[in-house]
Amino acid sequence: MGLGQDLYVKAKKLIPGGTMLLSKRPEMFLPDLWPSYFTKAKGCNVWDLDGNKFIDTSIMGIGTNILGYGNSEVDDAVFEAVKNGNMSTLNCAEEVYLAERLVEIHPWADMVRLARSGGEANAIAIRIARAASGRDKVAVCGYHGWHDWYLSANLGSDENLAGHLLPGLDPKGVPSNLKNTVFPFNYNKIEELENLFEKNPDIGIIKMEVSRNKGPEDNFLHKVRAIANKYNAVLIFDECTSGFRQTFGGLHKLYGVEPDMAMFGKALGNGYAITAIIGKRSVMEAAQKTFISSTFWTERIGPSAALKTLDVMEREKTWETITETGTKIGDSWLKLASDNNLKISLNGIPALIGFSFDSDQHLKYKTFITQEMLERGYLAATSIYVSVVHTKEILDKYFENLGEIFKIIQACENGQNNIDSLLKGQVCHGGFKRLN
Amino acid sequence: MGLGQDLYVKAKKLIPGGTMLLSKRPEMFLPDLWPSYFTKAKGCNVWDLDGNKFIDTSIMGIGTNILGYGNSEVDDAVFEAVKNGNMSTLNCAEEVYLAERLVEIHPWADMVRLARSGGEANAIAIRIARAASGRDKVAVCGYHGWHDWYLSANLGSDENLAGHLLPGLDPKGVPSNLKNTVFPFNYNKIEELENLFEKNPDIGIIKMEVSRNKGPEDNFLHKVRAIANKYNAVLIFDECTSGFRQTFGGLHKLYGVEPDMAMFGKALGNGYAITAIIGKRSVMEAAQKTFISSTFWTERIGPSAALKTLDVMEREKTWETITETGTKIGDSWLKLASDNNLKISLNGIPALIGFSFDSDQHLKYKTFITQEMLERGYLAATSIYVSVVHTKEILDKYFENLGEIFKIIQACENGQNNIDSLLKGQVCHGGFKRLN
Repeated sequence: MGLGQDLYVKAKKLIPGGTMLLSKRPEMFLPDLWPSYFTKAKGCNVWDLDGNKFIDTSIMGIGTNILGYGNSEVDDAVFEAVKNGNMSTLNCAEEVYLAERLVEIHPWADMVRLARSGGEANAIAIRIARAASGRDKVAVCGYHGWHDWYLSANLGSDENLAGHLLPGLDPKGVPSNLKNTVFPFNYNKIEELENLFEKNPDIGIIKMEVSRNKGPEDNFLHKVRAIANKYNAVLIFDECTSGFRQTFGGLHKLYGVEPDMAMFGKALGNGYAITAIIGKRSVMEAAQKTFISSTFWTERIGPSAALKTLDVMEREKTWETITETGTKIGDSWLKLASDNNLKISLNGIPALIGFSFDSDQHLKYKTFITQEMLERGYLAATSIYVSVVHTKEILDKYFENLGEIFKIIQACENGQNNIDSLLKGQVCHGGFKRLN
Repeated sequence: MGLGQDLYVKAKKLIPGGTMLLSKRPEMFLPDLWPSYFTKAKGCNVWDLDGNKFIDTSIMGIGTNILGYGNSEVDDAVFEAVKNGNMSTLNCAEEVYLAERLVEIHPWADMVRLARSGGEANAIAIRIARAASGRDKVAVCGYHGWHDWYLSANLGSDENLAGHLLPGLDPKGVPSNLKNTVFPFNYNKIEELENLFEKNPDIGIIKMEVSRNKGPEDNFLHKVRAIANKYNAVLIFDECTSGFRQTFGGLHKLYGVEPDMAMFGKALGNGYAITAIIGKRSVMEAAQKTFISSTFWTERIGPSAALKTLDVMEREKTWETITETGTKIGDSWLKLASDNNLKISLNGIPALIGFSFDSDQHLKYKTFITQEMLERGYLAATSIYVSVVHTKEILDKYFENLGEIFKIIQACENGQNNIDSLLKGQVCHGGFKRLN
């Protein structure tokens, strides 16, 4: 046992769930064997508590660091904010500059609110949209955080969010009165959204991710926009995950469809806590008719980091780099699979590329990859949240190592080897399986 | 017009409400004339965009900076976190250390979750408590943030929260289905809480501030605890504002009453974004039966700042210093008022001391104080959120300046002068009056 594994044993006694983010639970990667904690992160390198250095070819802080860990320009902006004071009775000017920048990047938007986590950005957007539309009901597609308004979709049946990234999610502790306020529809199924509105013409809001595993087909996004217009509903694109990965701003810019509101998070501050809600004036001004206010939304590091991150992303056209890199990664996975007679399927936009084995042993193979790559000095699973620091050199080496592992998986599929005997510990948790 | 006033004009077009926190709106201090934005803050000094330096004898970042702005030990811990990387795919060990520290300080508690803003800490606590009790209804006293669960108390009637710091607050955008899930009771009125439970024995949670304007009378807190026990309800103390101001930890430690959960915020990280929910294992483990997870709860600055802040507070016994200072400030206000034949009333715990004039001209006099003190180089109104940097020397000068202003107010009360002719702009907004 290393220091990280020891500390995680302690963490599970002190923190329900062990970590603050489900996706960073060691059980999601390699139960009992994952290094769990870091002392240092720079570029795409991560050092654990025992001083081991790993190359991060996995979720890169769950997609927060497009510019790599510890980008020096962004960190310098943060140093400056700390040096001059992070907080005061007066406000930081950076929040106005960031608001201005975000509406410049998205000309359809006029106004901005800032927050510090993606869940609360989603809750703020819903509050404003409900206040603006005067209607409580929401049609929803995709993942939008942990708050009551969203999880209420699972009240009564925990299957409603199946296919929405949260299958089987238990809405325990969400007030049962919220039942029948949120109605899920599936991506690219415009008739599902049409049916929802026919049955519930009092739906006032459509909230969705622009794209998750595949892009829009048959003008899906334009049709969603048309339905929103027809019913005078507020259309919200949750770009917390998708923003700045395929274009400079929201992914919706690629598809030529304008929402009434959008949210950004994750990549916006390159690893510093900042999220944003942008929207049309007619909708955003409804925030004035309600109460949305929190002390730490005023701290200075968040908007300072975001302003610099936007500068660097724009200058370097990072969305082009990571999209190109992610596309190549996908192609290389497919080739490696094909070379080893393995069937895999790709998922995600190029900058958030992932694959799964078309095999009922998928989770075991995934665990095996993590186990073997860890020994070779990589944090790796079956997704790469691409960063500009994922250079050709790093990825060539990654694929060299992964090739050896795919060969062993091929042997397992052929019956020449046994995956169960190769795993040193438990199989990783899949999706939103709870931690025991 | 200075640069700050100009920027705020722009902000109001870009940000609904103009700022992220209601209490930091310029209109809450001095409409059109407040400096609004800072470039630098250090100790109790704040510099505005025009380079003017002010001494902060007002809300000190709304109570976030007990150690003063830019405390060098805390800032060094933040620099270290930034230098070594704020974020990675692995977790930061500091979150476990902070959890450990908070349960050490509060021996009745076993487990901890961390978040980044006070509103979300409140929402997390409510989710966990509802999951633990299996009941949705909440009895509530005091202020607990902007989220749906809380504002729903105002649904149907906007007078329900009168006396709870949010009189007249409009719950626009809060789903109407949440009506009758939250029931307010007044502080020190145990019979109101008893009546609530008699009428609604299915209330599962009591959430309250330990003390706001005055302390518990007639064993109020012990009686609340007894009611929680009788009905098997989860008792939550919201210590986001009160924590670490009168004792090392929650204010409840002073009164010898243990809740089942408590939240901390504001002062915990001396101006860096960090909030915490602590609780008994039996309650906190319910977090495992639901979904509470957010990317930026994993960043490293928050817990790093909090760990160092706790060290410094413990070493310096800062709660003793600020309580003593706050008590002296209250006494000096009373003496100054008496010397000028003015009647004032004090409010708040000593470290969050405030006063109001017993006059229907109170808001005008408050505005006048802010206007005149600003010219003398102070950010000041009628509250001081006390910090250890509020030294005797600073306060002596503050009172010297304030004395001149009280004299003019006396003349206004006597009819020898006219407050309306003395004000250069609009009267400040009181309480939660909306910004137009």
